[in-house]
Amino acid sequence: MKIIDATKLTKDLLEEITTRSGLDNSSSRETAEAIISEVKRDGLEAVIQYAQKFDGYKRGNIRLSDAEIADALTELDTRSKNAINHAFKNILAFHKPQKPVDYTVETQEGVFCERRFIPIENVGLYIPGGSAVLPSTVLMLGVPAMIAGCKRIVLVTPASEKIEPAVIYAATLCGISEIYAIGGAQAIAMLAYGVKGVEKVDKIFGPGNQFVTAAKMVVSTDGLGCMIDMPTGPSELLIIADDTANPGFVASDLLSQAEHGVDSQTILLSTSQKVINEVEKELVKQISLLSRKKEIEGCLLNSKLVLVANIEDAFTISNKYAPEHLIINTENARLLKGKVINAGSVFIGQWSPESAGDYASGTNHSLPTSGYARATGGVAVESFMKGITFQELSRGGLEGLADTIITLAKIEKLDAHASAVKQRILQ
Amino acid sequence: MKIIDATKLTKDLLEEITTRSGLDNSSSRETAEAIISEVKRDGLEAVIQYAQKFDGYKRGNIRLSDAEIADALTELDTRSKNAINHAFKNILAFHKPQKPVDYTVETQEGVFCERRFIPIENVGLYIPGGSAVLPSTVLMLGVPAMIAGCKRIVLVTPASEKIEPAVIYAATLCGISEIYAIGGAQAIAMLAYGVKGVEKVDKIFGPGNQFVTAAKMVVSTDGLGCMIDMPTGPSELLIIADDTANPGFVASDLLSQAEHGVDSQTILLSTSQKVINEVEKELVKQISLLSRKKEIEGCLLNSKLVLVANIEDAFTISNKYAPEHLIINTENARLLKGKVINAGSVFIGQWSPESAGDYASGTNHSLPTSGYARATGGVAVESFMKGITFQELSRGGLEGLADTIITLAKIEKLDAHASAVKQRILQ
Repeated sequence: MKIIDATKLTKDLLEEITTRSGLDNSSSRETAEAIISEVKRDGLEAVIQYAQKFDGYKRGNIRLSDAEIADALTELDTRSKNAINHAFKNILAFHKPQKPVDYTVETQEGVFCERRFIPIENVGLYIPGGSAVLPSTVLMLGVPAMIAGCKRIVLVTPASEKIEPAVIYAATLCGISEIYAIGGAQAIAMLAYGVKGVEKVDKIFGPGNQFVTAAKMVVSTDGLGCMIDMPTGPSELLIIADDTANPGFVASDLLSQAEHGVDSQTILLSTSQKVINEVEKELVKQISLLSRKKEIEGCLLNSKLVLVANIEDAFTISNKYAPEHLIINTENARLLKGKVINAGSVFIGQWSPESAGDYASGTNHSLPTSGYARATGGVAVESFMKGITFQELSRGGLEGLADTIITLAKIEKLDAHASAVKQRILQ
Repeated sequence: MKIIDATKLTKDLLEEITTRSGLDNSSSRETAEAIISEVKRDGLEAVIQYAQKFDGYKRGNIRLSDAEIADALTELDTRSKNAINHAFKNILAFHKPQKPVDYTVETQEGVFCERRFIPIENVGLYIPGGSAVLPSTVLMLGVPAMIAGCKRIVLVTPASEKIEPAVIYAATLCGISEIYAIGGAQAIAMLAYGVKGVEKVDKIFGPGNQFVTAAKMVVSTDGLGCMIDMPTGPSELLIIADDTANPGFVASDLLSQAEHGVDSQTILLSTSQKVINEVEKELVKQISLLSRKKEIEGCLLNSKLVLVANIEDAFTISNKYAPEHLIINTENARLLKGKVINAGSVFIGQWSPESAGDYASGTNHSLPTSGYARATGGVAVESFMKGITFQELSRGGLEGLADTIITLAKIEKLDAHASAVKQRILQ
């Protein structure tokens, strides 16, 4: 861990604390591009070859049969089902009000302008696999897609043979039945361009490893019409804690972030040297009880424990950094909400660990990393819809706009734009 | 023009009509990458060198002085000012209701989840220059940025010396005073990374040529935190017309799209052979009166006039193509609105030419092209904001979630996630 004294917050120090350990993604991009080219050329065959190579794929069909889905639902234990049901219920309750509202404005007499939200027809949800089993991510993407009303929701996840029952159960709750046991860059290419038996989708959601992320970047910038939710990097947590914070709680939150992997980013900003010292001790104590020691120890090497002069400076740092997750563990934390300008999801007070939001409070855990929280929020219902605008002018309405359109077209030297008005009303 | 009989709409024919003439963007990308690398390395110096090379830049300061802005406002004629004021007023009226609403839900006892919309602090608006002068694009980006409440709105546009007064006037209406006479990929790099005297921005908006578009793709996928509005390609118009459509109106709309450039895409779908024949004649007649003949003739070479069996087939084609602009010029056009699934902006009935929406009806003209309308709408107020989620749990709230969080953490093999709960309530 790096202990930093930022009680005199210079510009250089601010830069040092908020600069992320940059990753060179160029080799992932090259690998992803190669896989994508092959899938575009050879279709399903290439998809299966890469699945065999990377995921030990040995299934007959890439798509799960109805019988496989039914078996998984029977196989899953009741306690797991109840937990998934509970999370589903809270996520549904929080996301329902996000459904955007259509409206019409008569901007001037005879000029009616409208915005209508239409669900994206075909969406693809990428659920990581490998060592992880992530029913929570299924819910975080599947619930808003379901509320939006997407006609076709496709789930892809890497597997050698069977997909974990918890993933299938969560998918079923969200009304998803088109599930493929394919992951990696080959799954992204399959979703973006389609292969035999799998129609392409309009937008791809979900986190993944560096190759999945690189593949999402490539397919979303080739001009061929497939979008992605957002660029995703390693997960992040920033905690602001004053001298009232319980060091055991703070340490447990840092550890819950650290176990995601060695490239996770954790920062503690505290006004109390005592809290920082005790958090260090707690980290050592608690880590001995946890299983993902390798990930945690790797991550903590790059962690920063920062002493700040006051809460104002803490928010200056936090807003510049724009963390994916922000925990405000201070007295009257609630009163500090207004100071948050850049963050993905915020946890208020000592009883709000990040893991509550990761799973079950109701908020979404698909959040912007790498500083993108300065520009976007997390996945929401409107991420699965698009606002189409409509305008209907009466003859009188067009007459009322004619001079303005013609004048602007003249300024912009686009006389055919003016002509479309003149043809109609000035003949 | 290509005349296509699609009265028997086979799958192949559907594919042929809706496939865009693909562009190979790899060389633009290489050029953009080279410029971006130089700007990252040499800063302002590289920006100015490229501006000199590509735009004949010969100013002293890249930023417009207050005096220059004041002079431009005096210089602009009253008719132009009135037209810009009029468009501003309608765009403001239509965009105001888009401001998203914050809300809080108690998802279960003691678990409060909230979404708050916060304006993006720093946004950059790219306004193309060259032969074009585009005050309308300033309004289309500046008005929603103003409504969102962005703290810093930066405008960049290429210029050798002076920026057109109409552009400056439109910027001033939107409260924009930070204006740089810089365009091209070098302007995108300057906005994304900052140079001496110009702080970087969080999100870049606006259309541009192939190098600008390529630069936007590059800076938004490098993992360094700058986002863009959307990928943009050549502009597009699809018209659906029945036998009641006035061929002169239809032709004038096709021409207004065609004058944007040879790579513009125009498609007419009609149930009437007579209308198609007369539109052809009208095109020839009207083009003789227009000035941008080279652009129009180049574009029309790739245009498609398609005879369809019925309106249903027309919408099948249109929704598969997902046009940036869709004109429905039919009897009772309004009743067909519900058939629109994929489109950027829709123009209903014979008195609603595309140029009305390009300038002054009130809707936004920054719209998805290249089929991205399947996945996103145009620029709107929420494009300039981000929805941050907050959660605050009471001790009882966390207790009510504990078993679910611990169970899900166990399924996902993330025991530090469970530990963050246990540390708090199970000690």
